[in-house]
Amino acid sequence: MIPKANRLQSVQEYYFSHKLREIQQLKAAGKLIINLGIGSPDLTAAPEVLKALTKATVLPNATQYQSYQGIPELRSAISQFYQHHFKVDLNPSTEILPLMGSKEGIMHISMAFLNDGDEVLIPNPGYPTYTSVTQLIGAIPTMYELTEANGWFPDLESLAQQDLSKVKLMWVNYPHMPTGATVTRLQWQQLVNFARKHQILIVNDNPYSFILNDTPNSILQVAGAHEVALELNSLSKTFNISGMRVGMVMGAASYIEAILQVKSQMDSGMFLGIQHSAIAALQLETSWFINLNKIYKERRLLVWKLLDVLQCSYHKNTAGLFVWAKLPNGGDGEQFTDELLHRFGVFITPGMVFGNAGQQYIRVSLCANQDDLKEVIHRLTT
Amino acid sequence: MIPKANRLQSVQEYYFSHKLREIQQLKAAGKLIINLGIGSPDLTAAPEVLKALTKATVLPNATQYQSYQGIPELRSAISQFYQHHFKVDLNPSTEILPLMGSKEGIMHISMAFLNDGDEVLIPNPGYPTYTSVTQLIGAIPTMYELTEANGWFPDLESLAQQDLSKVKLMWVNYPHMPTGATVTRLQWQQLVNFARKHQILIVNDNPYSFILNDTPNSILQVAGAHEVALELNSLSKTFNISGMRVGMVMGAASYIEAILQVKSQMDSGMFLGIQHSAIAALQLETSWFINLNKIYKERRLLVWKLLDVLQCSYHKNTAGLFVWAKLPNGGDGEQFTDELLHRFGVFITPGMVFGNAGQQYIRVSLCANQDDLKEVIHRLTT
Repeated sequence: MIPKANRLQSVQEYYFSHKLREIQQLKAAGKLIINLGIGSPDLTAAPEVLKALTKATVLPNATQYQSYQGIPELRSAISQFYQHHFKVDLNPSTEILPLMGSKEGIMHISMAFLNDGDEVLIPNPGYPTYTSVTQLIGAIPTMYELTEANGWFPDLESLAQQDLSKVKLMWVNYPHMPTGATVTRLQWQQLVNFARKHQILIVNDNPYSFILNDTPNSILQVAGAHEVALELNSLSKTFNISGMRVGMVMGAASYIEAILQVKSQMDSGMFLGIQHSAIAALQLETSWFINLNKIYKERRLLVWKLLDVLQCSYHKNTAGLFVWAKLPNGGDGEQFTDELLHRFGVFITPGMVFGNAGQQYIRVSLCANQDDLKEVIHRLTT
Repeated sequence: MIPKANRLQSVQEYYFSHKLREIQQLKAAGKLIINLGIGSPDLTAAPEVLKALTKATVLPNATQYQSYQGIPELRSAISQFYQHHFKVDLNPSTEILPLMGSKEGIMHISMAFLNDGDEVLIPNPGYPTYTSVTQLIGAIPTMYELTEANGWFPDLESLAQQDLSKVKLMWVNYPHMPTGATVTRLQWQQLVNFARKHQILIVNDNPYSFILNDTPNSILQVAGAHEVALELNSLSKTFNISGMRVGMVMGAASYIEAILQVKSQMDSGMFLGIQHSAIAALQLETSWFINLNKIYKERRLLVWKLLDVLQCSYHKNTAGLFVWAKLPNGGDGEQFTDELLHRFGVFITPGMVFGNAGQQYIRVSLCANQDDLKEVIHRLTT
């Protein structure tokens, strides 16, 4: 057999992939497992969104190749969405590129800007894909630690004292996964200033902006962002359409053009029906966001109760689809969650999945309904 | 601004992208341009395929994340399709990976198997993406020339005399784009033997297998293929659903696993509705293929007539969506097609787009209806 590429030796099996196999086996053995581990929205999409998909199937070019840049109407809808929610002006022709989910954007951006041996600043704790994609393309992940004491915001002064000469790219992700931390406008400005000073391309991954977040914001709002910043966003969590794979990257025209150069070698355009669904989603009324967050707020109350039972500590002013909590008495998250799984049939994600800075933490997903959450509390208290 | 990666310097703008801009300008100036350049199926999908999409929107997990490997029913349908049409047995759990179009497979396979500096055998003429993806990931394209005299089949004896020690991968593509050449079972065996002898992973890109081809075949049919061969296929051309982005890669479990390792870092699973559409397409009756090819046969007669008018020579026993034709008197394809565009408002693709071995050729697409083809002949003869 022909051996695989060396780059694959750096990629470990995703924690969830072997854990979900274990859960499968427990279920097959008759255990009733409740999964609070995964951030996969269980709520349904708006009827308008599905209607738009069905309606688009009768268009004459319904099943034909689409442009790499998406239809102009989709880029306009994204532009209006960013203007409406963030007061950010984006030229729909040159500063917006629709993506098949923001995840593919991580690869596209990395390929568009990183050479072999370039360093990349990556948050610890943080989304593991930043690291694995960086390794896959031959660049070097340089983790920056986030701490609870610092509000999960990078210590830019101490970072500036490191040798940053090889750093080309910095991933930030606010509202932050897994901690739910948000940043202020002033902090965005600090990040952009840092990136400008050190000539680093800073990319904010912003998929959680509209979940349990009273003041959604964007890195593109602050002065100087145009020069050094890109933003990824996604419709997955905001509109419960993760399976449709719609995301977007926004920023200066020359950056978008470089990303498009990569993307056009890797895929073709997005299915027309999904583009129409995305437009319908982006144009939903404010009530959509209010109703969505009402459900997540109710669930979060139950998750807080559950965490009280587990004697974990957590912050209440967080955003996003998860509650991040610290174990009592410096406990180890993996041991703790394995015990929960095997004793109570409850799966919660250990914080170390997101880096060693998460070792004493666990992450509880809000993608489970109230009945399941009540049942978990019941199991833990009886 | 932060500079883009060096790898993008190797990627030229796609010929079509600047040519289509030129056509846009001509149209804006009032010219009625007929486009015979692009291989984008204009025919509609089967009603069953669109019905399956709409029907799947009411499933409870309609808009949720899907598995990287696709639903088991899709892999089963692909397995049955390969068994039915090619008599190839594939384990749906381990030897089949659905893709968002076969194009993304070119990147996934390249990333899964190629290290920096590995060489890749690529056909000239051939699909330009093999070369650009190879360059994007830091491997080295080594072109192998195909000639009309050799029936557009590689000269394996002369290849074997080259230094192949650094060659890790070989792209083949039969039915061949742009020439439409097909290969016999014996020729598949020769290719597989060559790959085994030199320990090269050989990948056949097979999207045109069912278009104007009386005897569709697959590299996976021959002895020893399991050890060294992968096959890409696509539903785009076979079922007129290019915009839905459904393809697949098939081969030994360990190869598929390596590709999945890459893919799982780059995207998430395919939209459920599209998976159901794909299943409906794969299960269409034989009449689908007969009707489809009837239309293409009628169109091809007109294209042959058009080529006679242009005094080009061509073969009649070819497969796929195009007719490949040699210009009279050693003419240059780019000059010739530019003249056609500006004098007659007809866009045909010059063969050099597919490599310098195509310089004296042009490629005419069958993705244009009979009225358009008749109009082209009319313009050229009056």
